[in-house]
Amino acid sequence: MTEPALDLLCIGNAIVDVFARADDAFLAAQGMTKGSMALIDTAAAERIYAAMGPGTETSGGSAANTAAATAALGARVGYLGKVADDQLGQVFAHDIRAAGVRFPSQPLKGGAPTARSLILVSPDGQRTMNTFLGACVAFGPEDVAEAEVASAAVTYLEGYLFDPPAAQQAFRKAAKIAHGAGRKVSLTLSDPFCVGRHRAAFRALVKEEVDILFANEAELLSLYETEDFAAALSAVRAEVGLAAVTRSEKGSVVVAGAETVEVRAQPTTVVDTTGAGDAYAAGFLAAHAKGLPLAECGRWGSVAAAEIISHVGARPLADLKALVAAGR
Amino acid sequence: MTEPALDLLCIGNAIVDVFARADDAFLAAQGMTKGSMALIDTAAAERIYAAMGPGTETSGGSAANTAAATAALGARVGYLGKVADDQLGQVFAHDIRAAGVRFPSQPLKGGAPTARSLILVSPDGQRTMNTFLGACVAFGPEDVAEAEVASAAVTYLEGYLFDPPAAQQAFRKAAKIAHGAGRKVSLTLSDPFCVGRHRAAFRALVKEEVDILFANEAELLSLYETEDFAAALSAVRAEVGLAAVTRSEKGSVVVAGAETVEVRAQPTTVVDTTGAGDAYAAGFLAAHAKGLPLAECGRWGSVAAAEIISHVGARPLADLKALVAAGR
Repeated sequence: MTEPALDLLCIGNAIVDVFARADDAFLAAQGMTKGSMALIDTAAAERIYAAMGPGTETSGGSAANTAAATAALGARVGYLGKVADDQLGQVFAHDIRAAGVRFPSQPLKGGAPTARSLILVSPDGQRTMNTFLGACVAFGPEDVAEAEVASAAVTYLEGYLFDPPAAQQAFRKAAKIAHGAGRKVSLTLSDPFCVGRHRAAFRALVKEEVDILFANEAELLSLYETEDFAAALSAVRAEVGLAAVTRSEKGSVVVAGAETVEVRAQPTTVVDTTGAGDAYAAGFLAAHAKGLPLAECGRWGSVAAAEIISHVGARPLADLKALVAAGR
Repeated sequence: MTEPALDLLCIGNAIVDVFARADDAFLAAQGMTKGSMALIDTAAAERIYAAMGPGTETSGGSAANTAAATAALGARVGYLGKVADDQLGQVFAHDIRAAGVRFPSQPLKGGAPTARSLILVSPDGQRTMNTFLGACVAFGPEDVAEAEVASAAVTYLEGYLFDPPAAQQAFRKAAKIAHGAGRKVSLTLSDPFCVGRHRAAFRALVKEEVDILFANEAELLSLYETEDFAAALSAVRAEVGLAAVTRSEKGSVVVAGAETVEVRAQPTTVVDTTGAGDAYAAGFLAAHAKGLPLAECGRWGSVAAAEIISHVGARPLADLKALVAAGR
């Protein structure tokens, strides 16, 4: 086994986020479930965009957000995902490379446009996402570069990628390559409704291939079809070597074999919760790459998440290295 | 003379802003003059974009920012400007319409892409703009819709539009239509370097056609080629009926015939000065449309400017109506 060239390789839906403010009446009028992620087609994307207020565009995509924040914390990070050969694809590629992330994926030519997520931010900071997958549906096993996966200590898979049709095969391929090269596989469950749409496939992947699992409480309960958090924790403890479960303002719980670590949330003012879980995974994995103890991994996760939810947008604006060094 | 259907029609360069943070060393390495606006070609746009950090895209364009903020203050506003038939053009068109502004302009097909300005925001909040004009160079007299201009109580012209080759003719045409319909013409000088590039044309337009002039101190001094602010004020007082001159933290001075009104700046924390002048003009013109006295026009301008510089981006995020109603 050679020394890994990357600490982390993230694979996910390459998306540009379009943020706008919206009140609960708007969400209700549009038939949206507050706090969730819905997949939308071209017609719905045009309808919602026409109805929503002025927007701000920033690069997003769950695993891409994690890649950018992990790189900001000093780790060597790569990303695989599919943009189109268009202006928003150029924006996505610029932003992830400017964040210090290796991004070798080639843009899709002549197909669907770059994916975008219309994100409505409520006055209480909750986000409701409407994602038009666009070019992401073209991501398949052929996009999983064997050399990239084999070169990374951890390959991190975004649960949302279970939605585009060919991506589950890509996940399986990536997991096989990673384990064949003696590397680890990490997965984030992404969204309780996404878990519900693909529960059997998620359950099989978690049990068979996942070494490090990220989930929030609702996602974990959905995965194991239970209302009992303790039961869900027991189930995940039995199936994966390391799991970090976030619980919003209650902090997070990390389980690894017999070990259980409770991590408190960092105090902050919530402006926009978009990307909170992505940032938690980034902090956790950046500390994990440095060989830090689980409590410290969790603390880095909480610090990164607190930074992300303190402003609009899912990529860090402040100096994350300085924030974790401040040692709160 | 029929009753105007619009309080304000703004004409300007239709631009999408790309914001990134940058320190003084970056500006120096790129040969940029801090605080100014430079016109760049495709090659420079690609070079600067590749070198700059992760970005945030929001609709901009000086007169378009003024249009959006004036509409937010309750005025009936239209906008004329040229975007391309591309993704950034769709973003621009969505945002200005979502701001409540009438935007009848047709996108350019098969030509240059939608204009963008690469805006580097310094730690002290100053902005340095690098503008790729793209589709804006195609804006000419044929884009000045006579019915739109004739329907607006005030037509507001952005000085930056002196740079694209055909736009000066468009300005002259708009001014002729406006005055022919018994309406008023307003101009903002936009940038001291822009004034320097086109001083003779600016001087002639101000003297012959402008009823309401907006400028900051540096622009006014450049227009009249003097270092003496009192002399510049005397010159502008003799040439235009109403002029509002902004002086950053020193507030603004409004001159109208024999009348002089000093307006104080509103206290705020400076995050990004992009769009401060645009917002001041918006506040001023919104109050002016309601027939409020000059001191109140200036106060609305200061309140709107203070909101804009308190965050990244040149369009309002807070409720401007509530802010001016708070009556500080």
